[in-house]
Amino acid sequence: MPRAVTRNPRKIRYAVIGLGHIAQVAVLPAFAHAANSELAALISDDPEKLEKLGRRYKVKARFPYDQFEECLKSGMVDAVYIALPNHLHREYTERAARAGVHVLCEKPLAVTEEDCLAMIRVCEENGVKLMVAYRLHFEEANLKAINLVQGGRLGEPRLFDSVFTMQVKEGDIRLNPRELGGGPLYDIGVYCINAVRNLFGAEPMEVVAFSANNGEPRFQQCEEMIAAILRFPGRERLASFTCSFNGTDVSTYRVVGTKGELVMEPAYEYAEDLTQRVTINGRTREHIFPKRDQFAPELISFSECILNGAAPEPSGWEGFADVRVIRALYRSADTGQPVSLSPFSKEDRPSLAQEIRRPAVRKPDLVNTEAPSE
Amino acid sequence: MPRAVTRNPRKIRYAVIGLGHIAQVAVLPAFAHAANSELAALISDDPEKLEKLGRRYKVKARFPYDQFEECLKSGMVDAVYIALPNHLHREYTERAARAGVHVLCEKPLAVTEEDCLAMIRVCEENGVKLMVAYRLHFEEANLKAINLVQGGRLGEPRLFDSVFTMQVKEGDIRLNPRELGGGPLYDIGVYCINAVRNLFGAEPMEVVAFSANNGEPRFQQCEEMIAAILRFPGRERLASFTCSFNGTDVSTYRVVGTKGELVMEPAYEYAEDLTQRVTINGRTREHIFPKRDQFAPELISFSECILNGAAPEPSGWEGFADVRVIRALYRSADTGQPVSLSPFSKEDRPSLAQEIRRPAVRKPDLVNTEAPSE
Repeated sequence: MPRAVTRNPRKIRYAVIGLGHIAQVAVLPAFAHAANSELAALISDDPEKLEKLGRRYKVKARFPYDQFEECLKSGMVDAVYIALPNHLHREYTERAARAGVHVLCEKPLAVTEEDCLAMIRVCEENGVKLMVAYRLHFEEANLKAINLVQGGRLGEPRLFDSVFTMQVKEGDIRLNPRELGGGPLYDIGVYCINAVRNLFGAEPMEVVAFSANNGEPRFQQCEEMIAAILRFPGRERLASFTCSFNGTDVSTYRVVGTKGELVMEPAYEYAEDLTQRVTINGRTREHIFPKRDQFAPELISFSECILNGAAPEPSGWEGFADVRVIRALYRSADTGQPVSLSPFSKEDRPSLAQEIRRPAVRKPDLVNTEAPSE
Repeated sequence: MPRAVTRNPRKIRYAVIGLGHIAQVAVLPAFAHAANSELAALISDDPEKLEKLGRRYKVKARFPYDQFEECLKSGMVDAVYIALPNHLHREYTERAARAGVHVLCEKPLAVTEEDCLAMIRVCEENGVKLMVAYRLHFEEANLKAINLVQGGRLGEPRLFDSVFTMQVKEGDIRLNPRELGGGPLYDIGVYCINAVRNLFGAEPMEVVAFSANNGEPRFQQCEEMIAAILRFPGRERLASFTCSFNGTDVSTYRVVGTKGELVMEPAYEYAEDLTQRVTINGRTREHIFPKRDQFAPELISFSECILNGAAPEPSGWEGFADVRVIRALYRSADTGQPVSLSPFSKEDRPSLAQEIRRPAVRKPDLVNTEAPSE
């Protein structure tokens, strides 16, 4: 039994690590909608963020990064929510796990497969739970899409196509070099990969990618965009997607089956309504799913797992499954060759049973941070 | 001066070769909307088609294929409209050209680049005009899309994405082996390739493709579907598309620019309204373009070129430009390697000046033919 659980059996106390844009607009406000979760500590090197956000959310425990160990050992937190740049996910996961503190980590789980495996291992060895923050695994529109496709409503689902683009501002950490987890695949391509893996209920066996760069100073350290094709088993299905940091806001996927199609547009957003358009035998039905709090469900689900000793899903393996595809796509984009993936399977897939609904949060005032895109 | 022109300076007389589905539902009815064009002869090996369609359109000159030479030498036709299976385009073009008869040929122009070049050459050598039947080059919605993208309304156009799928019935000639011009690239992929080449106003420099096959008997001789990525010059743009003979009806493309996006859906149809959705700076405007006769404009334009001694556009080189991409995509799909294309440029691009509007035709009763898809 992990130590953390014994401390507070009714409410899991979280330290949020990293107080950037996503933490401020989504993670911190979500605690108000997660009755089994408590915002117990804030960790940042920006004293103004600690002061203002600490006051706003009534959190007295505030630590700079070099006092992270003290936070972990203080007995004040049962879990951490890691909202740090991608290349820091592994280190902070390892440190939390070794202190017996559970880990809810933003996606992508890490920069490399090796990092992911190390994180899964250290959490197992230390008896703490690891969950990856795939918010859409709890979201009605996306779960209904999976349910509809898996239920055969479109006939046999044969192909997937997705476009996810945004305009990332110069200086944003998303433009970091690949070694630090920068670039469109880690940040937004991961949504396309995760979507098709779960819509098809399968893992890709071969991938190919072209990357492109228009040469702007913004894109000196990472590519501007990537287009990819993934081959899936199960009577050979194909998926393609394009993700870019230099396109107007587009967020959409489409599954084409033998008898019908499903379009989600927007598909991946958390600050907008999501729209699902289903056409079967020539008849189209559109359904708008209102904007909801997609972060509270993650907290609720993870806290429940900790409280009840259940295995969290999306697990570390779900995070690994996407990172291994990202890495294969980069190998392909670098070498110009298609890349085969070793066999990998995952039993647990998101289902409607995971759905959790909470009302949307209001966008709070930002403290020393800004939106990544215009 | 080609002989054909001297025969009838006001109205170009056409023989329609091949009386399959597209000829019956679109080409033959179009003559009623093309004042400078006359349906003068029908060529088919099906006596019932010749009899019934000859009567319907009041065409007395009816020939089986083995009397094609007699038709050409009869002095009754100035031009042919070739609506034959793809692998016959070259032979019938060569025979018409050698008889001094102009050629309007369905797309794809031919099965191989070599075929295309031979067709362009034989028409030049014999002083006859060659046009490829790209109906969307005269169609308002698509020309406005090109105009909007080329005019910079979306900012810099950075990526293109398209899906074109249908359910092709067993036995349809589209399922022919590749040597006969069967398969989704020749039949529908050509629309995606033609669209992006003209939206970007450029020719791809490198391509990669995955083909897939679910093993159904229908797909014994050609692939079920193909997904492709094309790299374009001009600050490295990417285009991707998927075309399939085993998907519900989907026909859409999207251009994502730095400031806006354009979606056409349906994009490639001739028997439906076409819808254009443009989003610029977050504001969306949708415009529905009513179904029109997309075949009469081809006849009108080609006849005008013959009557006025002008160069037809879309030219044989436009047809070649797409076939060379199709062939490169097949080489990639076969070898698993990306394929570089040799430099090629084309000055003339479709523009709004080419727009010709004619009212939609009513679907006539079919004679011994059926729609290719369900």
